[in-house]
Amino acid sequence: MTSTTLFGPLAGADRVEAALDDAAWVRALLDVEVALSRAAAAHGAVPAAHAEVIAAAAAGLQVDVAELGAAAVEGGNPVIPLVRAIRAAAGAEAGRSVHPGATSQDVMDSALVLLVRRAAEILLADLAGAADAAAGLAVAHRDTPMIARTLGQQALPSTFGLVAAGWCAGLDRAGALLRAAVVGLPVQFGGAAGTLAASHPHGPAVADSLADALGLARQGVPWHTERTRIGELAGALGVAAGACAKPATDVVLLAGTELGEVSEAAPGDSSSMPHKRNPIAAVTARAAARRAPGLVATLLASMDHEHQRAAGPWHAEWPTLTDLLRATGGAAARLRVCLAGLTVHPEAMARNLALTAPGDAPHHAGELVDRVVGSR
Amino acid sequence: MTSTTLFGPLAGADRVEAALDDAAWVRALLDVEVALSRAAAAHGAVPAAHAEVIAAAAAGLQVDVAELGAAAVEGGNPVIPLVRAIRAAAGAEAGRSVHPGATSQDVMDSALVLLVRRAAEILLADLAGAADAAAGLAVAHRDTPMIARTLGQQALPSTFGLVAAGWCAGLDRAGALLRAAVVGLPVQFGGAAGTLAASHPHGPAVADSLADALGLARQGVPWHTERTRIGELAGALGVAAGACAKPATDVVLLAGTELGEVSEAAPGDSSSMPHKRNPIAAVTARAAARRAPGLVATLLASMDHEHQRAAGPWHAEWPTLTDLLRATGGAAARLRVCLAGLTVHPEAMARNLALTAPGDAPHHAGELVDRVVGSR
Amino acid sequence: MTSTTLFGPLAGADRVEAALDDAAWVRALLDVEVALSRAAAAHGAVPAAHAEVIAAAAAGLQVDVAELGAAAVEGGNPVIPLVRAIRAAAGAEAGRSVHPGATSQDVMDSALVLLVRRAAEILLADLAGAADAAAGLAVAHRDTPMIARTLGQQALPSTFGLVAAGWCAGLDRAGALLRAAVVGLPVQFGGAAGTLAASHPHGPAVADSLADALGLARQGVPWHTERTRIGELAGALGVAAGACAKPATDVVLLAGTELGEVSEAAPGDSSSMPHKRNPIAAVTARAAARRAPGLVATLLASMDHEHQRAAGPWHAEWPTLTDLLRATGGAAARLRVCLAGLTVHPEAMARNLALTAPGDAPHHAGELVDRVVGSR
Amino acid sequence: MTSTTLFGPLAGADRVEAALDDAAWVRALLDVEVALSRAAAAHGAVPAAHAEVIAAAAAGLQVDVAELGAAAVEGGNPVIPLVRAIRAAAGAEAGRSVHPGATSQDVMDSALVLLVRRAAEILLADLAGAADAAAGLAVAHRDTPMIARTLGQQALPSTFGLVAAGWCAGLDRAGALLRAAVVGLPVQFGGAAGTLAASHPHGPAVADSLADALGLARQGVPWHTERTRIGELAGALGVAAGACAKPATDVVLLAGTELGEVSEAAPGDSSSMPHKRNPIAAVTARAAARRAPGLVATLLASMDHEHQRAAGPWHAEWPTLTDLLRATGGAAARLRVCLAGLTVHPEAMARNLALTAPGDAPHHAGELVDRVVGSR
Repeated sequence: MTSTTLFGPLAGADRVEAALDDAAWVRALLDVEVALSRAAAAHGAVPAAHAEVIAAAAAGLQVDVAELGAAAVEGGNPVIPLVRAIRAAAGAEAGRSVHPGATSQDVMDSALVLLVRRAAEILLADLAGAADAAAGLAVAHRDTPMIARTLGQQALPSTFGLVAAGWCAGLDRAGALLRAAVVGLPVQFGGAAGTLAASHPHGPAVADSLADALGLARQGVPWHTERTRIGELAGALGVAAGACAKPATDVVLLAGTELGEVSEAAPGDSSSMPHKRNPIAAVTARAAARRAPGLVATLLASMDHEHQRAAGPWHAEWPTLTDLLRATGGAAARLRVCLAGLTVHPEAMARNLALTAPGDAPHHAGELVDRVVGSR
Repeated sequence: MTSTTLFGPLAGADRVEAALDDAAWVRALLDVEVALSRAAAAHGAVPAAHAEVIAAAAAGLQVDVAELGAAAVEGGNPVIPLVRAIRAAAGAEAGRSVHPGATSQDVMDSALVLLVRRAAEILLADLAGAADAAAGLAVAHRDTPMIARTLGQQALPSTFGLVAAGWCAGLDRAGALLRAAVVGLPVQFGGAAGTLAASHPHGPAVADSLADALGLARQGVPWHTERTRIGELAGALGVAAGACAKPATDVVLLAGTELGEVSEAAPGDSSSMPHKRNPIAAVTARAAARRAPGLVATLLASMDHEHQRAAGPWHAEWPTLTDLLRATGGAAARLRVCLAGLTVHPEAMARNLALTAPGDAPHHAGELVDRVVGSR
Repeated sequence: MTSTTLFGPLAGADRVEAALDDAAWVRALLDVEVALSRAAAAHGAVPAAHAEVIAAAAAGLQVDVAELGAAAVEGGNPVIPLVRAIRAAAGAEAGRSVHPGATSQDVMDSALVLLVRRAAEILLADLAGAADAAAGLAVAHRDTPMIARTLGQQALPSTFGLVAAGWCAGLDRAGALLRAAVVGLPVQFGGAAGTLAASHPHGPAVADSLADALGLARQGVPWHTERTRIGELAGALGVAAGACAKPATDVVLLAGTELGEVSEAAPGDSSSMPHKRNPIAAVTARAAARRAPGLVATLLASMDHEHQRAAGPWHAEWPTLTDLLRATGGAAARLRVCLAGLTVHPEAMARNLALTAPGDAPHHAGELVDRVVGSR
Repeated sequence: MTSTTLFGPLAGADRVEAALDDAAWVRALLDVEVALSRAAAAHGAVPAAHAEVIAAAAAGLQVDVAELGAAAVEGGNPVIPLVRAIRAAAGAEAGRSVHPGATSQDVMDSALVLLVRRAAEILLADLAGAADAAAGLAVAHRDTPMIARTLGQQALPSTFGLVAAGWCAGLDRAGALLRAAVVGLPVQFGGAAGTLAASHPHGPAVADSLADALGLARQGVPWHTERTRIGELAGALGVAAGACAKPATDVVLLAGTELGEVSEAAPGDSSSMPHKRNPIAAVTARAAARRAPGLVATLLASMDHEHQRAAGPWHAEWPTLTDLLRATGGAAARLRVCLAGLTVHPEAMARNLALTAPGDAPHHAGELVDRVVGSR
């Protein structure tokens, strides 16, 4: 769900939202501008003293977000008016060393990468927390008998440990994939045409120093219209959402009244039906995860950046990528709550298993659990 | 773009956002609860005096949105804690007449429909404004010669009037489709199982009175898990976004330096390149429109509501549908600005037309313009 | 699933495929060319005798599809080489009256509309058949008690009749929406630039005669780059798929071993597990329906046709729209099989209902069933 | 575009289709069954002589695809009737050693992975060919001046070499990402419940031998409902399509009549407009690429496999993943044709560059080209 105060907690997006909201954007944009002036200074492109004046000016800047948003309309992004504000605060002389050799996209892209890294830390922690919980369930119920169901029908015996190990394996793989995509995201620095012309002869060196200062990967070459990294990140977020959807769906089904094999620690109440025990964390994890695929598609469809700055596809990335982080982050956060507090009912599993009394003991199930948990 | 203060104006979503934000949600939820108690009272299901006490209590209720959002986590939606708050404010006696015969989904769905109607008014006005501007351009340039381009190549002569008439036709059709989808959205009232059991024998009558009071269509039968109307609305919003994307894309192309056939009234500046005249309204209209298809897909994919209340698909509708209204609303708003201020350069059209000097005068072009504009 | 011989029957797409395959395309393209020459002849634009020579030539044309496909590469569509073939078959003189005043897109778009209409007939019949089956179940089980489930949990009593009536209502609404979108699809005739210049002064009259001859709606004005109709159709197909997904999902859940409230007439067997009764028709209906939303998104995202012929978005429509017809058609066909043969188990419903023994008889359920069935 | 004979060549999908059609499916299914019996024999689970009888029977099997497709309806996949056919051909005794310890999903998933690997070889070769062509253009035009365009407007000088280097970088990154996803795809072997019970005590050993024999990665544990690998592959294919869309879009724009900076070697003709030179390869590459994001979304949305075999999400993967391979493969194939034959017009670049006569020589452009090409 979107980052609203009303729906954020329910959607699990409140923690990740703090890394993605307007204040986080402004902070990231300022971080990039300050780091850029310093990186330019480090290579003699602007006076070092200017960079420090700029850093101080940015630190003290009172940004009125509504005003900045209104001023962003004319040029199509908030960097242009923000640069004006930093220049004004830094004074006429140091002001000339603000935004050296840069174009708006350099600052927007680098700030977006900063936001991604900060939000992804939270998301990855929740994914890991959910995986840990699944691993704990797998170990605790390594040998708890349970019927396997295929196409909704009772099939053959398995164990709850193996089911939970499958959840764990998916969450672990998704987390590793996402971490790789996030860590690989580089700084952006190319100047107006992506040629580094305006920072000649310091461009490549400034770009690398900027990356180092911000803690981002180096770019090699500018990637202003080469968006495979954004696509890769989108795909990894989509996979993470899907890895959350699987256990959340299973929990909803297993918690159904007739199956009753698991229940949530704090099931949702119902004003009119006190006997109900709704698996609300799983339900909202599913809801959040369902939002991801469409957002991934939007980002992939917007990789067709025209010429040397896209006339729409680029602008479409900002809200879509941040919303995808909210959706996936929400799914992970809610699933973690669900799994960390999951109560397992072995007696119900035994009761259901007896319904069709199928043969074939789940010989390798424990061994497979050990493989998953042991490889973590 | 999402409904942020920083990006809202740029994305054209600031006006529609006022009809979709947390305050709008709370207002709509309260509107539904008050109207429901009154509708129940009108049929003798609750005392009329209670309904008025409830209305007064709701009117005076100070809702702390953050607190409500936190309280919404347990039950999975904000209606449960809001009902508690209204009951507390109405006092023990009248409190019993709050939320009569209803379930949370009745109130959430009806409130969502209210939000849709309020946001759609703004959106439809912007679509109409954009269409009017296109019609104005079509009439003004009914006979302005221009080269038609196919697959990016100069083809045969046309007129700018015919091009603008095509924009107008698409926007008009999209507006009509969207209006039909919005007007058809009914109230929701079914009770916990969708059987109207808890309001027996007044259920159907209360449902119709509630619809009338809220200015919504009557439901016929509850549609809690029959989501074709949500799907229809999603499709219509997607079509409206696409109808905006077409002229926005054309404007970006025609405004390109080498073509130079149109320009925006207030083109975006560039801090480093003063000679540029960026068609920023068209660019941001395109960006907003690109967000729509993925959101439509999410809503269509979430029509599979399980049993009598969906365990995730329903919750996924709230942020997705409101975000789709923001995206489409933003596209319409930005396109309206673009077209209302579009400057046409007939001399550039003539210059380009001369490049390949193709034959075939556009004999019927004027007549086709007249058909489009005349049928409005 | 795609239109393969191997997967088509399983996916329910084999019947609709016959209206969408290569042979259907060639037939439709020829139908349009023949009708166009005749329409032009009717208004004196070409000799009537030529039109009949062309009709005979087209009727006798042996089209090698592989050769035509290879020849289509150069110009980007099969119309260019097909026109050459018809001209050759019609002879030098009558050959001059082939494709009069037309451009490839006129023929491709009109043929696509023909395909849509032919495929939609099958699809609409299956949707209606599924709705009829649901209505039959609703009437037969108008008063069969059943537990309503919300968020997977047992909630309050309902009836199976009301559940089936909800399925019926959704399928009926989706069918009506789709029929309206299909019927409104017009012929396309605009010539190379969409100005009707090459058929002056007969263009508008030829366009209308062509529409009448093909049984399509009249166009008013050419819509070569005004794709709201394609978007509307896409949305309606997506809604139809969603309307199938809902009952298919319910059947899978209700057929689960522990619930056991319904079973399919011809449940799928399992080589290794003879006790299983897989609800395969519902399973494959769900699978087919899941393919629709992404295809809808592709069509909506491709409404941004540039200039007077799109450089990609247009070409993307052909496979996507036909595949969307296959997916939705498959969902409807498989759901029809599922519902037409559904066995209901009232005793299992009673057994499950007794688990939580909730109160509140479903007072209005029968009345709501009557409303749905009565309004058909 | 779908795998039709009529549209396949135009869509660039004809070569990849040969690895994905019905015959390829049947071959892959047989390959898996034969390898499985041999792997079981290698560990003493079935007699080695049986395995060879089965291999011979499978090699000689005349599969009527239409019949197999019809027989697949009942069980929901073609493995069940195919196993029956192999058993019949192998005779009563050896027939008992067909499909040892396996379930349909084991065979379908492993066969799908085989198809992916075979199709991906073609796709990766085309991606590499397109990247090579881009690298060649980058080197050849390392210092060819060209105007950079941002938001469609002329901005500052760049070089065509740098533009082509950007294309190359994207294609190379996408290829590497895709190769990693493909290589990591493992065999599937878990038996009916995913516990390897039916092949006890040989299960894990048989699974590894099967992987080795088929040339696939080993599975570790069964992944029948843990679909992160499918999601990862989907994301990588989506990124590859996007990496093709970027240069294809640029070529369409640069080939526009007014810009005229590039043209295709074999531009498409137009029946009515001989002066046109349509960049058809780029146009159809764009069209194919546009199909990918929606298909990726479908696969990601279908990661929510219920229980131990999904009731729909699994079946939805087959047509969607193969179609995604067709779409992405088509985009790569058509882009390769486009770039391999691209004619560059430096004089047009110079003429356009002179229009706004901006300053700032592209100082680092050549160095950035060297970085991209040098790192290959």
